[in-house]
Order: sequence, then structure tokens, then C-alpha cells
Amino acid sequence: MSEVESFFKSAFSVDNVIFGFDGSDLKVLLIQRGAAPFKGKWALPGDLVYPNEDLDTAAERVLEQLTGLRGVYLEQVKAFGAVNRHPLGRVITIAYYSLIKISDYSVTPASFAQSAKWHSLGEVGELAFDHNEILDNCLKELKHKVRMAPIGFELLPPKFTLTELQQLYESILETELDKRNFRKKILSMNLLQDLDEVQEGVAHRPAKLYRFDRKRYVKFVAEGFSFDI
Amino acid sequence: MSEVESFFKSAFSVDNVIFGFDGSDLKVLLIQRGAAPFKGKWALPGDLVYPNEDLDTAAERVLEQLTGLRGVYLEQVKAFGAVNRHPLGRVITIAYYSLIKISDYSVTPASFAQSAKWHSLGEVGELAFDHNEILDNCLKELKHKVRMAPIGFELLPPKFTLTELQQLYESILETELDKRNFRKKILSMNLLQDLDEVQEGVAHRPAKLYRFDRKRYVKFVAEGFSFDI
Repeated sequence: MSEVESFFKSAFSVDNVIFGFDGSDLKVLLIQRGAAPFKGKWALPGDLVYPNEDLDTAAERVLEQLTGLRGVYLEQVKAFGAVNRHPLGRVITIAYYSLIKISDYSVTPASFAQSAKWHSLGEVGELAFDHNEILDNCLKELKHKVRMAPIGFELLPPKFTLTELQQLYESILETELDKRNFRKKILSMNLLQDLDEVQEGVAHRPAKLYRFDRKRYVKFVAEGFSFDI
Repeated sequence: MSEVESFFKSAFSVDNVIFGFDGSDLKVLLIQRGAAPFKGKWALPGDLVYPNEDLDTAAERVLEQLTGLRGVYLEQVKAFGAVNRHPLGRVITIAYYSLIKISDYSVTPASFAQSAKWHSLGEVGELAFDHNEILDNCLKELKHKVRMAPIGFELLPPKFTLTELQQLYESILETELDKRNFRKKILSMNLLQDLDEVQEGVAHRPAKLYRFDRKRYVKFVAEGFSFDI
């Protein structure tokens, strides 16, 4: 065996961290593994990459095979390559993540996924492989991203109140935000369109409704400003 | 051969994109390969990862073996895994990057690096493998990072003028910045300490000297503000 051949003994996989918002809580989509290794354990939807498949394609294919989710925008986060992270041999994994509105998708477990279920972040126990570490890293990335880019607005109804927007941020950031500062920050960027409408059919004093103005955001970025919550 | 074994036929590598600032220009450290494949071509300092080595350790080891650079903080950026990116077989690579002050380090090519040289970004020709694509991605990441975190200050002398700071940003961002806006933005964050000193021995009117105040930055972040140039 030549020196170079001894390097070609590894495999690699993709693991998908799909975050979902259900209107009040941030959740993560996990599968229960119906095959070894870690049979019966909950895990991120991930699998080995075929020899003739590129990474982005593999991430989409694996997600669809295990959970039925299609058309989800996946972003690569990080490679995890600890030497003994996989019991079958040297396997490095590339983690991808996404943030979706749970009600927009239906989940259908298949392949070696015995079941697939949205879990609240607080309910995630010990996962297979190093998946807790991968989840933690992707959650950190999501928290960073949601403060730096307006990716949260797609999870809300088209017309929303500032309280709904703040609750979304509080769910994702897992922290309470100061109401006055939050409103000041978000309104000062001038990216919300005041619809001159209020909520209907609520018991409390109806709140004003806003819409995120994507055109203003494009202009905002072109002028060198940065989104920052 | 079992179905699983057929996946364990791959290798993986690390590639390091080391950006350096020489006081006026942003450069990248390249090696000239003295071994196949791509013998004689310029490339990023990278190599295959040993079966018993984790990724971060491999990145440091490979950088030191090829260029002599030690103690450089490397940050993982992205995995590149196009099917035919390597002529010897399926090899995915994990890219790392760093930003250093060129005068703080000496470069000593060794192993299969025939030479190692800092290149201005404009002088980088066609590189081995998919290294142009990797370099482009890391440069994009650097430009993003330098606007969001005060990583540039370590490249300047401890006392610097606002013009020097602006030139640093212009080199990294590869664009001219509006002087008035730049000064307004940087000073409004209140992270620079005005030293009440001016330059000495310059032909033009001496400019004021500043120092980056790391303590103020820690407080700034703790209070929920974000660095933004």
C-alpha cells in the first residue's frame, strides 16, 4: 500500500440542524435512529455522503430521505472531525443549518429514521454521536445570524406587532430583551412599514401592525448600513 | 465488501489561507508545490490529514511544516467537497484562515513547499486544485469579519492615526471609504482612546494619535452594542 493510499480510508457525512419556529417557541427537528450505530437514540438528520456526491447535494438528499423536508435552504456551518467521533471508523461530518416556519412544512420520517419530531431546545436530551456539540454550535451561529441579518421576519405573519417580533427574538436568543431598547433599535433602522392598522379581535388594547420592508432593506445595505438587533 | 465499507474510501485535507498586512497592503501566503499533483504550481499551504489527527491540529501542523509559521490563530471557514476537486481521489478539504502582521513572522518553506511567499491579492494567478475558489471564499469571510469585529487593530502600531486605520480598512475591503463617514462611525463607538499626542517627524501637518481601548470594547459588547465599520 502506497503512502498516499493509507489516507484514503475515511468517510464523511452531513448533519442537518433544522430550527423551526411555531409562533412561540424555537424547536429543532430530530430523528430517532432505527439502525446501528446508536439505534433507538435521537439524532440530527444526517448520513454518509456518496463517493460521487457533492456536500450541498448530500445535505439536501439526506434531509429529504430521513424527514421528507424539501426545498429548505441549508447553510454550511462547520466541519466536525474529532478522531473518535464515529464508532465505525474515521468520519468527519459537515454541519448544515436552517431556520424555518414549522407550519409551512410537513415531516415524514423514512429510511432509517424511525420517527422525526420537533423538540423544544429544553427537551433535547443526550443525542447520538457528537450531535449535542453540533447542535450547540449551530444554535450559536443562528443567534449570531439573527442579530446581523433580518432572517427572522419570514417566521412571522406578513403583518405583525412589535411584541410578536420581540417574542420571536427572545425565543431564538433564549433571553429576555428590554422592551424600550428593542423598539428603539428596530425602529431606528427604518426597515418596518407602519401599516396604520391595529390588531383585530384581541382582548387587550389592540397593537399597531407593521410589515418588514424588503426594498428599504436592500437600500439600507447598499448605503453601507448593517442590520443589528 | 459491505455497503458501509464502500464509503470509507475518501481522504480529507486542510488548507490554510493566511492573510498578512505589511503596513500598506493585504497579502496572502502561498507555497510553490515541489511534488505532484500540481508540481511547480502555487497553492495554499495545505495537506492531507492523518487518520489519527483532528482537524484543528492538522491545520496547525500543516501550516508549520510547509511555511514555518507557528502560533497563528486559525479559524475554520468552510468545507469544500466538489466530487472531482482532487486528482488522486475523493478528497474534501476544510479551509482555515487567519490575519497576521507580516513583520511579526518569518516564513521558512519546507516539506514539499519549494518556496513560500507573500503575494499581493492582485498578483495571485491560477492556483492548484480549487484554491482560487477557497481563497475567494476566505477573503469574503475576512471582509465580513473585519467590519463586525475589531480584528484589524492588531495589524497597526499601538499608536496610530485615523488615516492609517482607514488605509488598513481600505486594503482589506479593497475599496475606498468616505473619510468623513469612516471617522464618524469609528469615533461614535467610542472605542479609541485619544492620546493627546501627534505624529512626530512627518512632512505634512502631524495627525492625532489614537489607541484601541480593549477594555472599552469588552464593556461595549457586554452592553449589547456591536462593532460595525
